[in-house]
Amino acid sequence: MLFFTQCFGAVLDLIHLRFQHYKAKRVFSAAGQLVCVVNPTHSLKYAPTRCAAAQTSAEQGILPPCHHHEAVHDPQLVPCTCPLYSCPWEGHLEVVVSHLRQTHRINILQGAEIVFLATDMHLPAPTDWIIMHSCLGHQFLLVLRKQEKYEGHPQFFATMMLIGTPTQADNFTYRLELNRNQRRLKWEATPRSVLECVDSVISDGDCLVLNTSLAQLFSDNGSLAIGIAITTSKVHNAEGEM
Amino acid sequence: MLFFTQCFGAVLDLIHLRFQHYKAKRVFSAAGQLVCVVNPTHSLKYAPTRCAAAQTSAEQGILPPCHHHEAVHDPQLVPCTCPLYSCPWEGHLEVVVSHLRQTHRINILQGAEIVFLATDMHLPAPTDWIIMHSCLGHQFLLVLRKQEKYEGHPQFFATMMLIGTPTQADNFTYRLELNRNQRRLKWEATPRSVLECVDSVISDGDCLVLNTSLAQLFSDNGSLAIGIAITTSKVHNAEGEM
Repeated sequence: MLFFTQCFGAVLDLIHLRFQHYKAKRVFSAAGQLVCVVNPTHSLKYAPTRCAAAQTSAEQGILPPCHHHEAVHDPQLVPCTCPLYSCPWEGHLEVVVSHLRQTHRINILQGAEIVFLATDMHLPAPTDWIIMHSCLGHQFLLVLRKQEKYEGHPQFFATMMLIGTPTQADNFTYRLELNRNQRRLKWEATPRSVLECVDSVISDGDCLVLNTSLAQLFSDNGSLAIGIAITTSKVHNAEGEM
Repeated sequence: MLFFTQCFGAVLDLIHLRFQHYKAKRVFSAAGQLVCVVNPTHSLKYAPTRCAAAQTSAEQGILPPCHHHEAVHDPQLVPCTCPLYSCPWEGHLEVVVSHLRQTHRINILQGAEIVFLATDMHLPAPTDWIIMHSCLGHQFLLVLRKQEKYEGHPQFFATMMLIGTPTQADNFTYRLELNRNQRRLKWEATPRSVLECVDSVISDGDCLVLNTSLAQLFSDNGSLAIGIAITTSKVHNAEGEM
């Protein structure tokens, strides 16, 4: 009986996913962009993440935040960069992608410009939507997080990180674009490296920040479509002046 | 003695303004854009503004918010649109601009693209920076407001309003752009009419919203430069797809 109930649940999920996919494809078909439907995952808010632990250590003057493990062991070794889990995994940058895919089941998409369609935006904070994006010979991690920085007032934070070193990250510019209801919001910045901590990027507010009301204006039936584009910094610098 | 002290103060203010102007012109000279230095004005937070009074009346089920006066008297009569003052003035749309210039000393700038340089961003909330922009045969009001929606956490809200009717406003698109430190943030939307209430636009969050940390990243020495451009909606629609 339990088996049949689970099967039925899985079929319902598939139908829901298919519907979201179809809807997104209809909306963005004109632009010919690849649409990826990203379902939310609840953050383990109170789980001690590696970053948080490192931060605490740093505050106590013991070690620098986030990548203290690598500084001690091997500078090429990185802790698990998935912001959802307090994952004990540690490995070289080259195998971070396969770890994220295999252990955390994070999808990877190819293409210069893609549309990230985050579903179920109404879910309570903390919630994350995560995907990897393969582009220009590198892999990037896109994190959209719903979080309450001020109690009772959830906000959405979106950032992109390179699965590479900070020096490599400096060669790129990422763009996140929301476009709906005669409003358009664009954020362009240099991606951070996954060697830095996604939690600190978000707590610093150095990313695309949306209040709930603005997120609702850009949402369609509970889903938020974010256009993503990555370019090399040369292009960015040439266009960079206002 | 008091006279000399006041004169000295005025000279110091002029030097400060001149310095800000020079700095801004140096920064934006390459783009050949007109730079307007806008000094802050403290909002009269607890003064009962016309809008707030109208809102209270609306909550009590007496009259619709903001432009209830016009609905009763003359639909072409508008209350003073300057968000800073609880000004008892009421007049036709055609004379709002001269009222704002003469009574509230709000500057007006000409040009398709201008740079709005708001000084002294560190001042405590509530603070407003206001300017009028004359473009495409119409006048627009740009309001940048520092306000604490969540106590202890000031945010910056920027919006543009047409000094005209909502139908006229629908013909335009305004763009606000911040560009500094390898980060760029663009907001595009249809301007609201001054017949609507700037307070409600800001409380709805239907505008460019900046957390303090992001505002600091885009600021240079306490001043925030916002590039402003206005186009007709036809251009916007043609470019409007992602």
